Amino acid sequence: MIMEKGISSVEVLPSKSSQVTAVKVVVKEPEAKQTQRGKRVGFVLVHAGAGYHSESKAKEYKHVCKRACQKAIEKLQAGALATDAVTAALIELEDSPFTNAGLGSNLNLLGEIECDASIMDGKSLNFGAVGALSGFSLAAFKRNKRKLELAEKVETDLIQLKKRRQSNEKENDSGTLDTVGAVVVDQEGNVAAAVSSGGLALKHPGRVGQAALYGCGCWAENTGAHTPYSTAVSTSGCGEHLVRTILARECSCALQTEDAHQALLETMQNKFIGSPFLANEDGVLGGVIVLRSCRCSAEPESSQEKPTLLVEFLWSHTTESMCVGYMSAQDGKAKTHISRLPPGAVAGQSVAIEGGVCRLESPESS
Amino acid sequence: MIMEKGISSVEVLPSKSSQVTAVKVVVKEPEAKQTQRGKRVGFVLVHAGAGYHSESKAKEYKHVCKRACQKAIEKLQAGALATDAVTAALIELEDSPFTNAGLGSNLNLLGEIECDASIMDGKSLNFGAVGALSGFSLAAFKRNKRKLELAEKVETDLIQLKKRRQSNEKENDSGTLDTVGAVVVDQEGNVAAAVSSGGLALKHPGRVGQAALYGCGCWAENTGAHTPYSTAVSTSGCGEHLVRTILARECSCALQTEDAHQALLETMQNKFIGSPFLANEDGVLGGVIVLRSCRCSAEPESSQEKPTLLVEFLWSHTTESMCVGYMSAQDGKAKTHISRLPPGAVAGQSVAIEGGVCRLESPESS
Repeated sequence: MIMEKGISSVEVLPSKSSQVTAVKVVVKEPEAKQTQRGKRVGFVLVHAGAGYHSESKAKEYKHVCKRACQKAIEKLQAGALATDAVTAALIELEDSPFTNAGLGSNLNLLGEIECDASIMDGKSLNFGAVGALSGFSLAAFKRNKRKLELAEKVETDLIQLKKRRQSNEKENDSGTLDTVGAVVVDQEGNVAAAVSSGGLALKHPGRVGQAALYGCGCWAENTGAHTPYSTAVSTSGCGEHLVRTILARECSCALQTEDAHQALLETMQNKFIGSPFLANEDGVLGGVIVLRSCRCSAEPESSQEKPTLLVEFLWSHTTESMCVGYMSAQDGKAKTHISRLPPGAVAGQSVAIEGGVCRLESPESS
Repeated sequence: MIMEKGISSVEVLPSKSSQVTAVKVVVKEPEAKQTQRGKRVGFVLVHAGAGYHSESKAKEYKHVCKRACQKAIEKLQAGALATDAVTAALIELEDSPFTNAGLGSNLNLLGEIECDASIMDGKSLNFGAVGALSGFSLAAFKRNKRKLELAEKVETDLIQLKKRRQSNEKENDSGTLDTVGAVVVDQEGNVAAAVSSGGLALKHPGRVGQAALYGCGCWAENTGAHTPYSTAVSTSGCGEHLVRTILARECSCALQTEDAHQALLETMQNKFIGSPFLANEDGVLGGVIVLRSCRCSAEPESSQEKPTLLVEFLWSHTTESMCVGYMSAQDGKAKTHISRLPPGAVAGQSVAIEGGVCRLESPESS
């Protein structure tokens, strides 16, 4: 049996700082849905960057997110662990011509393709990162051979792109549309997170971006002695802001308190926008997707031994917009959404936050 | 007027884990010393790595630390800020043939010299890092021109060294003798921290070590709204262990509680040796130097308006040994010390901790 999550009404909250506006989403109680016997459960949430997503390309961004969700769910249904599913989602997100991470990432000043990426497995707490010239990250994340051959051709195209960029105005204000990421929980309750970034256009050669840095680009941690919840986080935005606030890990820590929504909102306000390490910045630009899960019984009155997994998922951003997609193994297709700051809210000084809840029940038990 | 610090008796403490042994140093009350009018005050603490320091080279390691302390104090007495003084100490530490950081750092698998380094200024909270091929870090840290010319010659020598290393047994067990660092507090109470590392011998090309990673290699934070103390930290040891525990920042946070000694000991035991992120490691190898300062009156009964700076300084390590040096602007020369685990204590599972206290009084006020 599986369940549903709801994103419903939006209300604007006044916050501590007069410049900060928060969008609160009232989350509906999860409904129960019938699921097929023997099918595996799991949940994925992906992002195609926090930055500015134009209306004209909204369809394409959403499509990328949708496909990434489907790839992850296929993996989960085939019995893959969270880490494999999150990798599948990441590769799909990187593949798109509409995202600029991974293979299609930005060039450095020498004209070389550079990208940063990392994956964290919540069970083993292993963290794998690459911040390297083209080719390296692909091998690391088990891309197929065709991709490696494609790389050289793409490189030629990108040299052209570089020239175009140099002559153009800045393509987007924050330079942050180049990051993609995903978080996953599998049937066993294991979590995993991944992120991939092209970083800044024409970056300094050798620059290691937030996506490859421990605690900054992604974080995943299964429930443990000191952690009642399993948590997974993937970030996007201005690399320096994400690094100086070690944002992924900070969100994961905060999510160990009872109210996930409140914890994330406070983190974005006090530890991100209000961070003393970013006091000199005009605006603080970033976004996160988070997922947390715990085993619990949805119906306390029923004493049946159902291994139920409650999954709470949220996204929050201080940028103009953030594109997300999510799907549970029981859904026929992914839901996608471009979250935008409310009219009048100033990017870099305001926070939007939305999310939902989803209950996963192991089908074997029904 | 300046002060003294005392390292005195050593006692072995039982700790929570049966495998952890702590060496506690009873710190003597600081004594007051007469200082010259018009001379500036300040304090520096440096390290030449946490790892294994052979008795046969002890003199050389100590000498390096001594010179680095003197360079920093010269800067402070000339009116330099903490960041400039810490940079001067770092360059001196890197210069030695007995340390393997900076210019003399390890080679990567391609035979290129690679080093990682970072400096953090507690006042601006600026963090500057380089993790790069030879030449880059030198320029970044304003090395003199002669050094840059030397680099090419040294490179040739290092190719020889590489070959020797490949044919030799591992030179030291933990591979961690290659890191140097310093922490400084200046007359105004500003703190700064620095670290430089050669990383692993024959490392993967492009590997970014702990010394260049935010929160891992060094940390400095002046007193602020939420931070009663100014703190500065520099680390050494196994890079992966320092990164996975974000050790420098973790120590800095812990030092905001009242008892600095207890806070550091608990951090080393619970957040380093006992870290869930290092649960699969046989031993957890690292060392830190920390400094914290606050403005306070040493003699509460006297109502004189003396701007007194109380400086507590500590070093702690889980490695066999750690080489440190320290000096205040009032001292004629630096004190140096090679701290070793007590006999029978197992490296990677035991903690040694030592330190002292020092009071800096602005000479203008006497």
